[in-house]
Amino acid sequence: MYAVVTNLPSDDTTFEFAQIMTLVPLRIGLFGCGTVGGGVFQILESRAAFLKSIGVNATIEKICVRNATKPELVALVKGHSTTITTKYDDILDDSSINCIVELMGGVTDAKDVVFKAIQKNKHVITANKALVANHMTELNELLQAHPTVRFGYEASVCGGIPIIHTLQSSYSGDVIKEIAGIMNGTTNYMLSKMETEGESYEAVLKEAQDLGYAEANPSADVDGFDVQAKIAILAKLGFGCVIPPSSIPTTGITRIKAIDFEYAQLMHSTIKLLGVAKRSNPHAPNEISVFVSPILVPRSNVIGSCGGASNIVNVVSDNCINGAYVGQGAGRFPTANSVANDIVRLAQGVVPPAAFAATQQVTIQNDFAGKFYMRIRISDGLGIVRRVGEEAEKAGISIDSILQLPIQDRRNVDFVVTTDVTQLSKVHVMAKGIEGLPFVLEPPLFLPIL
Amino acid sequence: MYAVVTNLPSDDTTFEFAQIMTLVPLRIGLFGCGTVGGGVFQILESRAAFLKSIGVNATIEKICVRNATKPELVALVKGHSTTITTKYDDILDDSSINCIVELMGGVTDAKDVVFKAIQKNKHVITANKALVANHMTELNELLQAHPTVRFGYEASVCGGIPIIHTLQSSYSGDVIKEIAGIMNGTTNYMLSKMETEGESYEAVLKEAQDLGYAEANPSADVDGFDVQAKIAILAKLGFGCVIPPSSIPTTGITRIKAIDFEYAQLMHSTIKLLGVAKRSNPHAPNEISVFVSPILVPRSNVIGSCGGASNIVNVVSDNCINGAYVGQGAGRFPTANSVANDIVRLAQGVVPPAAFAATQQVTIQNDFAGKFYMRIRISDGLGIVRRVGEEAEKAGISIDSILQLPIQDRRNVDFVVTTDVTQLSKVHVMAKGIEGLPFVLEPPLFLPIL
Repeated sequence: MYAVVTNLPSDDTTFEFAQIMTLVPLRIGLFGCGTVGGGVFQILESRAAFLKSIGVNATIEKICVRNATKPELVALVKGHSTTITTKYDDILDDSSINCIVELMGGVTDAKDVVFKAIQKNKHVITANKALVANHMTELNELLQAHPTVRFGYEASVCGGIPIIHTLQSSYSGDVIKEIAGIMNGTTNYMLSKMETEGESYEAVLKEAQDLGYAEANPSADVDGFDVQAKIAILAKLGFGCVIPPSSIPTTGITRIKAIDFEYAQLMHSTIKLLGVAKRSNPHAPNEISVFVSPILVPRSNVIGSCGGASNIVNVVSDNCINGAYVGQGAGRFPTANSVANDIVRLAQGVVPPAAFAATQQVTIQNDFAGKFYMRIRISDGLGIVRRVGEEAEKAGISIDSILQLPIQDRRNVDFVVTTDVTQLSKVHVMAKGIEGLPFVLEPPLFLPIL
Repeated sequence: MYAVVTNLPSDDTTFEFAQIMTLVPLRIGLFGCGTVGGGVFQILESRAAFLKSIGVNATIEKICVRNATKPELVALVKGHSTTITTKYDDILDDSSINCIVELMGGVTDAKDVVFKAIQKNKHVITANKALVANHMTELNELLQAHPTVRFGYEASVCGGIPIIHTLQSSYSGDVIKEIAGIMNGTTNYMLSKMETEGESYEAVLKEAQDLGYAEANPSADVDGFDVQAKIAILAKLGFGCVIPPSSIPTTGITRIKAIDFEYAQLMHSTIKLLGVAKRSNPHAPNEISVFVSPILVPRSNVIGSCGGASNIVNVVSDNCINGAYVGQGAGRFPTANSVANDIVRLAQGVVPPAAFAATQQVTIQNDFAGKFYMRIRISDGLGIVRRVGEEAEKAGISIDSILQLPIQDRRNVDFVVTTDVTQLSKVHVMAKGIEGLPFVLEPPLFLPIL
């Protein structure tokens, strides 16, 4: 978009286009050079000849890190003219640098760096989902005030899957109805393990921690907060709405038990932690529901077939009906590849002009309608189905099915009720009612059914 | 890329970019207005307000069709200023038209129209896989001679899946090792039916014909020719090699029987008709194998989970490890959406500069290595396994497993041999040898194992 153009057409037809003679070389300042940053450096190095052959001229001129003498970093840049610094301003104040790549993470210093770079008309590429999701409106305004700046954030959602570019460039003529995705590899690994091995939540969490997939404090993954920011970003791209991540109703996987997979299997389904943004009311197409929750997914759905640490985003739309994008959600090279894609597209001048989708008139309606799965843990006795049925009726919910696996311990029985299409708020009422029944041992667990 | 640029930076820094003031409106001439063309017209119409809001200015000025009075067409353009003509030159000679969309199909008139349009510096968008696959070198040369022209062909492969744009824009920093895809919905529907219902090939073909999925002469689909052209196009994008479609070893699905799905199931696998292009020799990374064949795919592979009439393309690469793109492979709106995407990207000036990937030094090696499945139909007797084993040994092939389902009719038995990694040419030798054995009833069927 920022090509220096010469040879404008000399004749009077309206259809001749300027010929590109020169693309300005990208001179990059990199903030943060850990796992992903190192990967970006290596990709640009190993693919240098090919990139040159397709006219991509991009070099990492400076790297800003906390510790400039870290041996891996020194080894990485050896033989290159890249300068290492510990001062942000060494990059920000360098007028020869026309693009920054922010891989520091966080929303304090990273925000400062990104905002200052835009103010200085430097292009910005970032992998920072928290920054993009939490400061979307400000970012958008700042970018509008600096129209020559391009903003790439492919790596902020689902590592190696080009989902952001795809939503930016392949759905303009389409109307998206639903975006639903497995966007956290750690929890997908855990849920897949619980399903295939019948292991407990606690056991798979420990395994994931031992493998380095899950943090010592696993909350960001298992409580769904990681997915919150990602679905907020995709909701903007799909529906043009800005949603503060913290306002998104979010349920993690901590209450899922091995027994839930047994019931899911009875229903030819599995359980996946999904971020969902959808038009959920056919009578009000501009009502968008956004939530993060473990969801009962039919095995026949492409999302249900995505196991292990993979990610998938499924897009339902008017024209394309269904499109799914599957890949690695994290990791050094998948994520670095997405950063490199942003760099290459920028160097080629083929970045979609608007980083964020145009704002559309939508309302957020989180009391969405759907079918639900509810697991109720009880001490067995008489009249239980009747009493549960009464609570459903009081809440105005029609029950679709009642499932009961063979009882092993009468004092500790899990059975499952599935509902017809109803409102989430009614399910809350029903769950509250059931929780108060004398034979119920804990608050019922309920999950939407995809 | 063809933006009219003004306000070039006035200061002396190297990093300020030109600000785009105007994008030239796209004035489109559409050749062919059947299923897909009508869909493109409707998409641009129904999304007009949104497209305008994101700065896309594209109108279909003229439509060239064989029958200008066809009622559907007249109804479609009613209320629009679009002109209908039956003469190609009414569009080609119109200097106000700066982009043509070719949806006629075929490689005679369509080729003339496309080549003339490029010579007249009009942008070209086409859904014509045969034209692109068979005339890639000429097209590429012509485009290089007309550098302002952009060439979009997203709709030529896998209808609604943005696989061409993804390969053009998301793998520049990566090294692709394998592209394998289900790219024909008709045969995928048929194979899925054979698997789930245990039906015969003949029965599912009739069903597919009754549903309008398969033609009265189904050869293009069932013999794999449709996939030939598509994998030729993807091989160019993934590996930079031009391969004449007719030179691609191609096996269709006509010899697949219900029994093959029974054996596949024993191996936790299914059978899919795939187009494959891959680096198959780890010792010679520039050797590329390209072929079309039914292939035994593990159920756990994402390709194995893609049923019905869906398409999927799976890309294995160094950085991203694995990326799969799933969607509708055909149909009015999925295909029209891909054409619309090309139009929108062109109107926004964000089309990758090279329509075809840079040429790379690769050699085509179709005698690829892999494991194989071989089904042998025999009249049961003594010494069969020994004789088959001798033929394998003569061919230099190590047998991995021998599978035999319970025998129902001793005069007509199918059993299966799977091989260790070997060369395709050796499998041919083995199959020829086995065909000559006295108890063998027909030439063995062999399929690669993914």
